[in-house]
Amino acid sequence: MKTENLIGFKYAAGQKTFKAIEPASGKELQGDFAVAPADAVDEALSLAEKAFATYRNIDKKTKATFLRNIAAEINNLGDELIERAMAESGLPQARLQGERGRTIGQLNMFADLVEEGSWVEAVIDRAMPDRQPAPRPDIRKMLVPLGPAVVFGASNFPLAFSVAGGDTASALAAGCPVIVKAHPAHPGTSALVAEAIKKAAEKTGMPEGVFSILYDDGYAVGEALVKHAKTKIVTFTGSFRGGTALMKLAQEREYPIPVFAEMGSINPVFLLPEALENRYEQIAEQYAASITLGAGQFCTNPGLLIGMKSKALDRFKAALGEAIGRIASGTMLTPGICKNYSTLSEEMLKEQGVTLVGRSGKLADDKSNQALPLVAEVSASSFLVNPKLKEEVFGPYSLLVIADYEVQLQQVIEALHGQLTVSVVADEDDLEKHKELIQSLVDIAGRVILNNVPTGVEVVPSMQHGGPFPATSDGRFTSVGTGAIKRFARPVSWQNWSNNMLPDELKDGNPLQIWRLVDNNWTKEKSEVSSPKSDA
Amino acid sequence: MKTENLIGFKYAAGQKTFKAIEPASGKELQGDFAVAPADAVDEALSLAEKAFATYRNIDKKTKATFLRNIAAEINNLGDELIERAMAESGLPQARLQGERGRTIGQLNMFADLVEEGSWVEAVIDRAMPDRQPAPRPDIRKMLVPLGPAVVFGASNFPLAFSVAGGDTASALAAGCPVIVKAHPAHPGTSALVAEAIKKAAEKTGMPEGVFSILYDDGYAVGEALVKHAKTKIVTFTGSFRGGTALMKLAQEREYPIPVFAEMGSINPVFLLPEALENRYEQIAEQYAASITLGAGQFCTNPGLLIGMKSKALDRFKAALGEAIGRIASGTMLTPGICKNYSTLSEEMLKEQGVTLVGRSGKLADDKSNQALPLVAEVSASSFLVNPKLKEEVFGPYSLLVIADYEVQLQQVIEALHGQLTVSVVADEDDLEKHKELIQSLVDIAGRVILNNVPTGVEVVPSMQHGGPFPATSDGRFTSVGTGAIKRFARPVSWQNWSNNMLPDELKDGNPLQIWRLVDNNWTKEKSEVSSPKSDA
Repeated sequence: MKTENLIGFKYAAGQKTFKAIEPASGKELQGDFAVAPADAVDEALSLAEKAFATYRNIDKKTKATFLRNIAAEINNLGDELIERAMAESGLPQARLQGERGRTIGQLNMFADLVEEGSWVEAVIDRAMPDRQPAPRPDIRKMLVPLGPAVVFGASNFPLAFSVAGGDTASALAAGCPVIVKAHPAHPGTSALVAEAIKKAAEKTGMPEGVFSILYDDGYAVGEALVKHAKTKIVTFTGSFRGGTALMKLAQEREYPIPVFAEMGSINPVFLLPEALENRYEQIAEQYAASITLGAGQFCTNPGLLIGMKSKALDRFKAALGEAIGRIASGTMLTPGICKNYSTLSEEMLKEQGVTLVGRSGKLADDKSNQALPLVAEVSASSFLVNPKLKEEVFGPYSLLVIADYEVQLQQVIEALHGQLTVSVVADEDDLEKHKELIQSLVDIAGRVILNNVPTGVEVVPSMQHGGPFPATSDGRFTSVGTGAIKRFARPVSWQNWSNNMLPDELKDGNPLQIWRLVDNNWTKEKSEVSSPKSDA
Repeated sequence: MKTENLIGFKYAAGQKTFKAIEPASGKELQGDFAVAPADAVDEALSLAEKAFATYRNIDKKTKATFLRNIAAEINNLGDELIERAMAESGLPQARLQGERGRTIGQLNMFADLVEEGSWVEAVIDRAMPDRQPAPRPDIRKMLVPLGPAVVFGASNFPLAFSVAGGDTASALAAGCPVIVKAHPAHPGTSALVAEAIKKAAEKTGMPEGVFSILYDDGYAVGEALVKHAKTKIVTFTGSFRGGTALMKLAQEREYPIPVFAEMGSINPVFLLPEALENRYEQIAEQYAASITLGAGQFCTNPGLLIGMKSKALDRFKAALGEAIGRIASGTMLTPGICKNYSTLSEEMLKEQGVTLVGRSGKLADDKSNQALPLVAEVSASSFLVNPKLKEEVFGPYSLLVIADYEVQLQQVIEALHGQLTVSVVADEDDLEKHKELIQSLVDIAGRVILNNVPTGVEVVPSMQHGGPFPATSDGRFTSVGTGAIKRFARPVSWQNWSNNMLPDELKDGNPLQIWRLVDNNWTKEKSEVSSPKSDA
């Protein structure tokens, strides 16, 4: 495991170092990771800019091969990667093996997307030389990469949303070189994955600078990366405070750049009466499991349950409290996150009208940084007037909001702001009776879910992982699924160019056989266009 | 002509009023336009929010009918509209008739787009109930409208980028109610068009609040609109100062919203040696016309010409100077714009190393606010060190930058920032010799043009009118062409919903016959999907 910063293909030391903490023991792990010195940021970005000139034009097959090689090299890391990730994150083996599978799957998915090629949204309007009063020129448009991307590793997915996670995979797929700011909670995991990327880049002949990684246990390196003139886009998954700080830095630049920040949400769940009546026990079990999954450290963790006062709700509440009580504590990602969780969840209990539904007392033996699951309750009227209760408590916590009247359900929706997900637990009759409520959920969320839990984010083209602010900085984009590539590209039109000067994606005869909108018709035939010009 | 603010379907007066100025005479035109009082902003947005709940769900055929009715009602305004627009903008009749055609064309284009329906980018991944270790739920995604949009009318396109221009047409097409902040330079034109929209909305049964228009000759109303919590997106075409001020307001909100600001550019044109050698006279004529089109008041006006020192360039320069001298002055849009033009163009001549190439002395008789075309020159070395010379001079002005060495051409590109367009004038040999230069143009522009002028923006799906900052606030979007609709929408995923609860766009069997990505295959067959769920 290399503990130095990786700038292009070279490792570079730093004066200052830091160590990773094993959250389960509270002890330092081996490895002195080099805090990137000030000039490392500029070196990495200068290399990235140089690499961009080559990398953007590498043919799609070779780019796909690069991505698949990264996946293979990560797989080759074997147990060493899983063991280091377990030590650094406190997450269990099975979860990290699953996450490695997802990471590899994402890289291969973007390899397929790039190789297929239609993601560039090629649009062609052919010339009309005889149009009156003036001829219409030939115009052809497609997406091109933005340039060097800065990716902040996330603490809660040390593989799937870190060094070679969804952001890096989609940026590289788009044609953007990547500089990762490693998350200080898992520098060893980061270093191993970075080495896998380096190997893959060298093996497939990628330009030096297509990937770099910098370490820092503070904020200076991240700030410098976002402020650097050569950085063209930033992605981040983490806290609201962190995300909005980066947005501000990016907006204050002389030339502002987009920041896609995924800042979490409380993922409200509406529990409708008939469903509770029919199957309160099953719902309680399902949600107790969802609330505590991965020690509640998912961006889609259901932090808010909303139901109508009823006997069925009382029964649900009892079952949920009982189920939560049965679930043992989990190791949190970092001592800081654990401390925040304990403080915030206890503070919530002291808020006006908040009482305990159930909490776990089952502390895992001999382990530090444990989060004990906790569910509290409050009336909708108290909830509506207290902004504190709408804040995210990162961890295995949920607040049950109990409405006295139907109209309060709608009021709760209106009091909430942008969310990654909103869920509804409902049976036939519920759906019939709450049409308006269900309709209004679409206004606040990126994903609306019926009778499923929000945890478990499928990596598919139909996934939207990005809701209105403050869930993310820009709800028009997603960070999960093939759509994630769109964050790193912008359209460019070519007007009046001859065929040989155009990118292959836009050439006459569709040599890449991609889907294109030609004179307003979608087609992927190999020779659907021959422009009047090239006929001449 | 109604001079009051239109809030939903009702006209509302204001205490303060202002009059339009006829730039050609400098005199006031008839009509006392009501400055919107403070509460008008809130009223318009509350109505818009209410209208949104209905309007977003109106079927696509009816929405298309609404847009086509707006087009028809604008046409019905006949000469009155053209005459008022001529008086208020100083633009000639033929130009405004053409612009009306474009405005109507845009409305009909978006009507067609909405009626066809595929713009929502429907994506379906069907359930895999037997997947191990856990079943995969059915997930379906499509674009949904953001909510009330605030559209700032632009001064330089009093029809095509104003009250019922491209921004309004694409916002309404997406399903967003629109509140227009009328440009104070053409309130009468605005009022006439607003009345046409009102008629169309009433005739086609649209909800009240789908459209409102507010007047102000200052900044207060615009500011209040951008700050209002119910506003979900803002579009603007105008100055850098205006655009960045709105961006800042939007970012400082408690819940930031996107601003799409098109802030103009200097649209550099690279004149390569062989082309100049072969046809300097034709190029000089073509560019003299482009620089002075519409008194140079196009966002895509070629404000910068760059060439290599040569005898051919000297001949081109002489021909351009001569051609510019022959072109008469044009009336500018407002006295303020005219004053800025005179001041800035004269200031440029006083900058280090800047000399005159040619200017027109042909002042139109008896007219005020005239801009006299002017072309200046400067060496590339002087240009590179002087930021002032890279500023836009809004009007019939262009600066010829003369490079001593090939490498300076590349340096000029690197010194420029985001542009709407970059053009190249080149013959076969030029293209062969300047491959790298041409490649690098893509980095700074939204549209790259070969042997055409940048003025003349085709309204087609392949158009990209939006470049990297500072040309626009977000180069990932366009404000011209069908792509403009994407600014007003965001994706939402539906997970595990039964068929009857889904939007028609996502229903089994593709009842709307739109293009959809189903299990990773594009198809528009009528019954390509029946989910396992609905089979059961």
